[in-house]
Amino acid sequence: MTRGEIVLKTKIDLNCDLGESYGAFKVGNDEKIMPYISSANIACGYHAGDPMTMAQTVNAAREHNVAIGAHPGFPDLMGFGRREMQLAFEEAKNYLIYQVSAIQGFVKAAGVNLQHIKPHGALYNMATGDEKLSKAIVEATQTVDPNMLVFAPPRSVLAKVAEKAGLIVAYEFFADRAYNSDGSLVSRKQSKAVIEDQETVVERAIKAVQEEKVLAIDGKSVKLGEVHTVCVHRDAPSAVKLAQALKRGFAKADIEVEPAGNFI
Amino acid sequence: MTRGEIVLKTKIDLNCDLGESYGAFKVGNDEKIMPYISSANIACGYHAGDPMTMAQTVNAAREHNVAIGAHPGFPDLMGFGRREMQLAFEEAKNYLIYQVSAIQGFVKAAGVNLQHIKPHGALYNMATGDEKLSKAIVEATQTVDPNMLVFAPPRSVLAKVAEKAGLIVAYEFFADRAYNSDGSLVSRKQSKAVIEDQETVVERAIKAVQEEKVLAIDGKSVKLGEVHTVCVHRDAPSAVKLAQALKRGFAKADIEVEPAGNFI
Amino acid sequence: MTRGEIVLKTKIDLNCDLGESYGAFKVGNDEKIMPYISSANIACGYHAGDPMTMAQTVNAAREHNVAIGAHPGFPDLMGFGRREMQLAFEEAKNYLIYQVSAIQGFVKAAGVNLQHIKPHGALYNMATGDEKLSKAIVEATQTVDPNMLVFAPPRSVLAKVAEKAGLIVAYEFFADRAYNSDGSLVSRKQSKAVIEDQETVVERAIKAVQEEKVLAIDGKSVKLGEVHTVCVHRDAPSAVKLAQALKRGFAKADIEVEPAGNFI
Amino acid sequence: MTRGEIVLKTKIDLNCDLGESYGAFKVGNDEKIMPYISSANIACGYHAGDPMTMAQTVNAAREHNVAIGAHPGFPDLMGFGRREMQLAFEEAKNYLIYQVSAIQGFVKAAGVNLQHIKPHGALYNMATGDEKLSKAIVEATQTVDPNMLVFAPPRSVLAKVAEKAGLIVAYEFFADRAYNSDGSLVSRKQSKAVIEDQETVVERAIKAVQEEKVLAIDGKSVKLGEVHTVCVHRDAPSAVKLAQALKRGFAKADIEVEPAGNFI
Repeated sequence: MTRGEIVLKTKIDLNCDLGESYGAFKVGNDEKIMPYISSANIACGYHAGDPMTMAQTVNAAREHNVAIGAHPGFPDLMGFGRREMQLAFEEAKNYLIYQVSAIQGFVKAAGVNLQHIKPHGALYNMATGDEKLSKAIVEATQTVDPNMLVFAPPRSVLAKVAEKAGLIVAYEFFADRAYNSDGSLVSRKQSKAVIEDQETVVERAIKAVQEEKVLAIDGKSVKLGEVHTVCVHRDAPSAVKLAQALKRGFAKADIEVEPAGNFI
Repeated sequence: MTRGEIVLKTKIDLNCDLGESYGAFKVGNDEKIMPYISSANIACGYHAGDPMTMAQTVNAAREHNVAIGAHPGFPDLMGFGRREMQLAFEEAKNYLIYQVSAIQGFVKAAGVNLQHIKPHGALYNMATGDEKLSKAIVEATQTVDPNMLVFAPPRSVLAKVAEKAGLIVAYEFFADRAYNSDGSLVSRKQSKAVIEDQETVVERAIKAVQEEKVLAIDGKSVKLGEVHTVCVHRDAPSAVKLAQALKRGFAKADIEVEPAGNFI
Repeated sequence: MTRGEIVLKTKIDLNCDLGESYGAFKVGNDEKIMPYISSANIACGYHAGDPMTMAQTVNAAREHNVAIGAHPGFPDLMGFGRREMQLAFEEAKNYLIYQVSAIQGFVKAAGVNLQHIKPHGALYNMATGDEKLSKAIVEATQTVDPNMLVFAPPRSVLAKVAEKAGLIVAYEFFADRAYNSDGSLVSRKQSKAVIEDQETVVERAIKAVQEEKVLAIDGKSVKLGEVHTVCVHRDAPSAVKLAQALKRGFAKADIEVEPAGNFI
Repeated sequence: MTRGEIVLKTKIDLNCDLGESYGAFKVGNDEKIMPYISSANIACGYHAGDPMTMAQTVNAAREHNVAIGAHPGFPDLMGFGRREMQLAFEEAKNYLIYQVSAIQGFVKAAGVNLQHIKPHGALYNMATGDEKLSKAIVEATQTVDPNMLVFAPPRSVLAKVAEKAGLIVAYEFFADRAYNSDGSLVSRKQSKAVIEDQETVVERAIKAVQEEKVLAIDGKSVKLGEVHTVCVHRDAPSAVKLAQALKRGFAKADIEVEPAGNFI
C-alpha cells in the first residue's frame, strides 16, 4: 500500500459516527460536523438510526462529499450497542449482512457507493480481540461488497482476519482516547481514558499521522504503524469544534484530509 | 402482456408468505410448503423475520427453485403488521427501502434476484385503496430494483399506481377468501370471510385462472380479469395440504404452476 | 367538585411530559423544567422512556414535589407514539395495564403514588373522540388504580367515559395550541396550530383559568368550562422559559400552581 | 425451614416457563401443561411475552390453581433472552423492577399475588455465578415485593445473595439436564447436556426430592441438598407428556405436587 501523490503530500481520513438519531429521538449535530470530516460511519437501525435518519444522513454526506461507511451494531437499541452481547457466529454474520445491505440500499439510491464498514461500539471493541467475531464481520463484508474498506485498529485481530481474507484495512487512530503501552485503548471504565484538552488531541493526531507514534498513559512512546483514519467522537462535548480544530491542525501540518478510499 | 408458450399452456404462480419466524419464535412449516409453491414472499424483519430466518428461508427457496419476493410490513412486530398505522409518505417509502434492501442482500448472497415485492398485512390492504401509500411502495420499489414485479389485486389503487409508474404488476387472487361483488375481499371481521373447504378453494382458484371469474358472497359472478398469482395462506389450519391440493388441482386442469416472473 | 380553600384562592396544575429519553438517546431538560411545574407525565417504555430513565425521572419528580402521572403510549418507539394505530380493545387495555403497572413499580419504590394517567400523543388524540379506546383506557385505569385522576380535554369522549365509570377527570387546557370554535384543538397539520409567542400563551392560560374561555382561531370566544391543568410542551423551542413564564404569570394573577390531586 | 405437615408427606413444586408467546408468534402448549404443574414462570415482555399473552396466561394459571412467578429476562427479544449481555448494575436492577411490576399489574388484576421470581435464560445462568447481577435481582425483588420466593439453584451465588438479604429461596432442580460433579449444570453446548429419556428424567426427579442426590455425568453421586421445585422445560419435544409423567411419578412415590409457597 502506498499513500501520497507525486508531491508525497501526506493524507489522512477524518471519520465520525453519524446518523445516530432514532425517530423523534434526535441526537448529534450531523450537519455541522459534515464540513470538517471526510468519512461518515452511518448507523444501520440496530443500535441507532432509523430509515428516515439513514436516508437523510446519506444524502447530507453525499452533498458534503463525505465518503459513506456502514456502521452496524448489536441489536440493542436501549443500550446503544455499547453492551457486550454473546452472539453465535451465524447470528453475528447475518445481523451484519442485514444492516449493511439496508444502508447500501440508501447509498445506491443516492448514486454513490459504500466506502467502508466500521462496526459500532461493543461489536468493534470485542472484534479487536475475537477471531470468530472478526470472521463474522469479514464474511458479511465479503457477502455484501468485498470492495469495502474495513476500519480497524492497527494490529488488531479484526485487522489481521480482514487482511488474511483479502480485504483492505484502513488503520484507525482514536485521537481523543488514551492508549496503553501495548497499543490498546485505555478502558473507558478507567479515569483519564478520554483526553479532553482539544489542543492535546490535535497534537496527538498529527504525531500519529506524521511519526506513527502515540504517547501512552504510562509515558512511553508507542509505535503505532501507519494510520489512515482518525476518529472524532460525535458525542464528545464539543465535537464540532474538535472536528474543526483537527481539520485546521492537519492543514497547518500540511496533511490533507481526504476519504481513506482515495489514497489507500 | 402475453402468457403461455406456443402450445398456449395456461400458467399460474402459487405464492405463500414464508420466513415469518422471529428468533426462537418459530412459526410455519416453510420447508414443507416449498415443494408446492412457485413464489415465496419473505418477511424482512419489521413485522416478522429476523436475519437468521431470512438467510435460511432465502436458501431454502433457492434450493426448491421457488422465486423470491420481498414481503415488507409495518414496523409492528407485536401486531405482526396486521394493524393499520398512519405513516407519512417519506416514512413509508424509507421503511420499505430499508426492508427490501435488507432482504436483497441475502438474495444476492444466494446468487439469485428478487422477483417481486408484495407488501404485508395491513400495509397491503391499506395500499389497495390509498394512492399516497401506493406511491410510497412504488417509489421504494423503483429505488431498490425497478425490475421487480408488484403483487397486487387486479384493479386496485396499488396496481394502477404501479402500472402508471411503469412497473409490471402480477394480479393476485386469494383462493381461500370470500369476495364482495365489487371485486374486493370480504373483511376478516365478517363471518364467512375465509373459505375453509379445501375442495371449494381449489375450484375457485381454477375458475379464477381459466374463466377470470369468482362467485361473490352475494351469489353474483364477478369478472376478475387476468389472474397471475394465487395466494396460499401460511397460517391456514392446513396450509401444506391446501398448497398440495392446489398444485394437484391445477395439474389436473392442465394449468402449470410457475413463478410469475417466467410468464408475465 | 369544588376548588379553592376558604380564601377561595384559585389553583391550577401545570403539567409536562417528562422522562422521554430512551437509553443513550437523551432528549429534554427534565431537571430544568421540574422547578416550575406541579405534575409530570412520565413515559412508560412503549413510545419513549426506558427503566433507567423512568427510575431517574420518578426520583427527580419526588425531590421537586412534583406529582407523578403515568404517560402510556402506543407501542411505536420509532414514531414516538405520534402515529395512529388501530388496536383491538383488549390490546389497548392490556398495553396500558402493562405500562401503568411498570411505572407504578418505580413510583412505589420511591415511596409515592401515581396521581394521574395521561395517555400520550396519538393515543390521547384518538381517545378524545373514540368511545371504545376511551373505555380501554378507563378499564386499564380502574384495573391498576381507580384513585388515579384522568387528564382529558373538557367535554371529550375520554372525559365522559371516565366520569361515567366513576373516575375523576382533570380537565386539561393546552396553552400553546390554537383552538377551533367547537373547543377542539387546531390540527398540527394546519398552520398557526401552535402559538409561539410566550406572552400570548401566558395570557391565554390565565384567561382559561380565570374566565374559563379561550379565543378560537376564527376570533370567537369559546366557553371551555372549568380547567384544572395546563400542559407545557417539553419539546417546545423554549420549554423551560415557557414553564417559568407560566408559573410567574399565574403568581401575578394570584393563581397558585399545585398538583391537581390537591384541589380536585 | 421445614416442609411437610404432621404426616410428613413430602412435597415438591413443579414449575414451567409459560406465557412465552409474543403477539401472533404463538409458541408452547400452555393450556395443556397447566393441569400438571404447580407454579408458572410467566415472561414479562422483554425476552418474550406481550401484554395480551401475560393477561391470558395469568388468568389461565389462576383458573388451574397454578401459582404465578415473574420470569424476567434480558431485553433481547430476537435472542429470546438466551444470550449473555453485560448490563450495568443499575440497568439490570431497573429492567427487573420494570418487568416484575408489569406482570404484578396483571396478577393483582386477577386477584392473586406473585409467588416467586425466576430470572430467565442467560440472566438466570449468569446470576448463578455473578454476585453483582445477583444483587441487582435481589434488590429488584425487594423493591417490588420482598415476600416473593426466589427460584435459584442450591448453593448458587444467587441463592446465597438472596438469603443473605433476607429473601426466601426455593432450590431448583433441573430434571432433564445433566449435572457436573460439582453440582453445576452441564453446558448445553456439550453433548448429553439434555436428558431425553422420559423415564430417566422422572427417576432423577424423584431421587433428587427423596435422597437430595443426582448422578453426575461422570458417574459420581452428587449431594444436592434440599430441593423445593423441579423445572419442566416448556420447549422440550414432549413437554406435556413429561409434565404428566413427572406428576404421575411423584404421586406413585407419595410425593405431593404443590406450589413452593405452600410448604417453604
